[in-house]
Amino acid sequence: MSEQLKKLSINKSRFRKDFDELCKIGRTKQTGVNRPVFSQSHLEARKWFRKKTLEAGLEFHIDGAGNHSALLKSHQKDAPALLLGSHLDSVPDGGRYDGALGVLAALEVLRSISDEDIQLPVNLEAIDFTDEEGTIVSFLGSFAFTGKLTQEILNNPRGGRKNLVENLERVSLKESELFSAQREPKALAGYLELHVEQGPYLEKSGQSIGIVEQIAGLSFYRLTFIGREDHAGTISMQERLDAAQGASAFTLAVREIMLNKFPDCKANVGYTKYTPGAFNIVPEKAEISFEFRAADMKTFREMDQTFVKQAKLEAEKYGLELQIEFLGKRDPVQMAAAPLDAIHEAVDTLGLSYKKIISWAGHDAQALADICPSGMIFVPSVGGRSHSPEEFTKWEDCVNGANVLLHAALGMASK
Amino acid sequence: MSEQLKKLSINKSRFRKDFDELCKIGRTKQTGVNRPVFSQSHLEARKWFRKKTLEAGLEFHIDGAGNHSALLKSHQKDAPALLLGSHLDSVPDGGRYDGALGVLAALEVLRSISDEDIQLPVNLEAIDFTDEEGTIVSFLGSFAFTGKLTQEILNNPRGGRKNLVENLERVSLKESELFSAQREPKALAGYLELHVEQGPYLEKSGQSIGIVEQIAGLSFYRLTFIGREDHAGTISMQERLDAAQGASAFTLAVREIMLNKFPDCKANVGYTKYTPGAFNIVPEKAEISFEFRAADMKTFREMDQTFVKQAKLEAEKYGLELQIEFLGKRDPVQMAAAPLDAIHEAVDTLGLSYKKIISWAGHDAQALADICPSGMIFVPSVGGRSHSPEEFTKWEDCVNGANVLLHAALGMASK
Repeated sequence: MSEQLKKLSINKSRFRKDFDELCKIGRTKQTGVNRPVFSQSHLEARKWFRKKTLEAGLEFHIDGAGNHSALLKSHQKDAPALLLGSHLDSVPDGGRYDGALGVLAALEVLRSISDEDIQLPVNLEAIDFTDEEGTIVSFLGSFAFTGKLTQEILNNPRGGRKNLVENLERVSLKESELFSAQREPKALAGYLELHVEQGPYLEKSGQSIGIVEQIAGLSFYRLTFIGREDHAGTISMQERLDAAQGASAFTLAVREIMLNKFPDCKANVGYTKYTPGAFNIVPEKAEISFEFRAADMKTFREMDQTFVKQAKLEAEKYGLELQIEFLGKRDPVQMAAAPLDAIHEAVDTLGLSYKKIISWAGHDAQALADICPSGMIFVPSVGGRSHSPEEFTKWEDCVNGANVLLHAALGMASK
Repeated sequence: MSEQLKKLSINKSRFRKDFDELCKIGRTKQTGVNRPVFSQSHLEARKWFRKKTLEAGLEFHIDGAGNHSALLKSHQKDAPALLLGSHLDSVPDGGRYDGALGVLAALEVLRSISDEDIQLPVNLEAIDFTDEEGTIVSFLGSFAFTGKLTQEILNNPRGGRKNLVENLERVSLKESELFSAQREPKALAGYLELHVEQGPYLEKSGQSIGIVEQIAGLSFYRLTFIGREDHAGTISMQERLDAAQGASAFTLAVREIMLNKFPDCKANVGYTKYTPGAFNIVPEKAEISFEFRAADMKTFREMDQTFVKQAKLEAEKYGLELQIEFLGKRDPVQMAAAPLDAIHEAVDTLGLSYKKIISWAGHDAQALADICPSGMIFVPSVGGRSHSPEEFTKWEDCVNGANVLLHAALGMASK
């Protein structure tokens, strides 16, 4: 890379102006934003993105899954696309940075390169993926884009089938055309995503940039322990088959197993329900929602086996039946060498401190990693807060992140 | 007691006819009845009771709390009342025997004694207490009757204040006049109640009659363990403050403590709720509904202390706060010597097998025991089933129970 290119940086004031404008769209009373996918405010944010794209003299494109792209075309014919992106949708009553920062930075990178009239052997594409937060279908946009979307997923979407049908209709997306968003791997040079960490590790380390080496895998289960309904006053303690015992024992075991066997991974029992659920009735059913996360495939599989075995053990111990419902998973993903190198070089070029990091939350990059070399850049989340109006990242860190994205993109483009 | 009196028995066919008629009132599709207090079917059952009372030439009386009584007056002036009774209301979709059997048997005892023109030194009063099942206020009728009803109870009734006001208005009962139902202890010779066991002990023992020696005390708590809400994917296992751990540990500890320290008593965690209650959020709050029962005051107090201490221990262990809400209790009650003797003598006279038994469910007799010598007679519940359409007691056992009630009443009257 030339010395001139090494000195390139994004236009800080334009980037800030964009950020401030976008924050106003769907702004909540506090400092948050409420932009669930296809809500009025989300559609307004996308309209704003389109306007900014066209104002910058970039091409604009929408695919069959509603993914919005700004394009800076290469002078080379049939150049592959180097994707930079994230998402403009938010969780209900979410924060200003999650997703939005990555899309804004991607657009700013395209404009900064365009401003300097730099010729690259790739088409630069700033992409805003549809429904990363999964209000309708988790990762709808990036799953369609990478060929991971199936009719089965659409038939049983996270937000319910009715919600999906009504929402697609309202924004004039056709279900059958969602699949047309799929892109050929050979037409892609890679994918880079800037995102806030949403966790406390980076801030605690005092480093400016997180270089994501893995995105953790995530697995969901619904476990139902089944005993027998009895009058709690009349059945003896010895004879009752209390479903709550199995669920409670499993919940405690999860923590013990994690601390002893998988201290760096994550697992959570976040929901439980006893049926019938009255003071004086021994619970017949105790349902729990359980998830676990690991950064590598070996540990991910080992955790799965360990927890299924443990649930069976606890059920047996208390004379209960056990219903195991596997609700889905995303395998852990290792970031590719090329983007990792490009991000490391960018951080060096800019003289920023960094920390190698695992992303414990899911991202579109997880889907993209399957079809092209993908990388992620994290900036610190103050207090690790996310998915809340309190989400905050220092502006200096946002600018640093955008500059790392710029230089990593230049690096990837030249490889 | 004269040999002639010893041979007295109730009119089986009349008793059966009554039972069959009453079963039809509020009958559900299965063999159950649906007669929650002040429902149309409950009011119809009470109307039927009044009609039967008057047809038998007995006096009829309603007090300020809506308790319905049939009276067989003594020839002696200012004779005290010997109460025989139970309740005609049912839980929603309940069974045919719970409460109804005791009222029918009481009425039949009065008629059988009246038929023979037997003169007793007590007024016999067959009483149907209002809302034993607590649809509006637990034990409304017997609490008013015994002076245990307070304005505080009426301000925060189990079924909600609106429900109470509307129901009282609908049946033309005045709230201020509920208290007028209170009776003077000196005007009462005692209280006897025939009831189905609602538990499995009597059937298992193969005995015909249960002589209740204690009615277990019952105590209710709502315990809320409070930790911190965090993204389950990003907070480390070591740092999270997971409210579910405290609630689960307590739930397991309850069972262990019961089996080891109080194997003959009862305790139940019947309901739980995690807040916010999502797969990927560490539970901030874990609320549980907890009740325990003991047959004697010493154990009752010891259990209370043990469980409160245990809840605090578990909260501390997992770094949680603990909110303890005491929701009320009914102290255990020892049945009095006079009715116990009278029931024993009655069982002997009739040559029936019996078992001394604890009532683990609550009854109006618990309130009555505070102001007059009270006793309870149990008959076996097949499979221990109750509060359900499957509730069943063999007809022979019902007749035996009614005859024990008759002879115990004669015994009490002559003491």
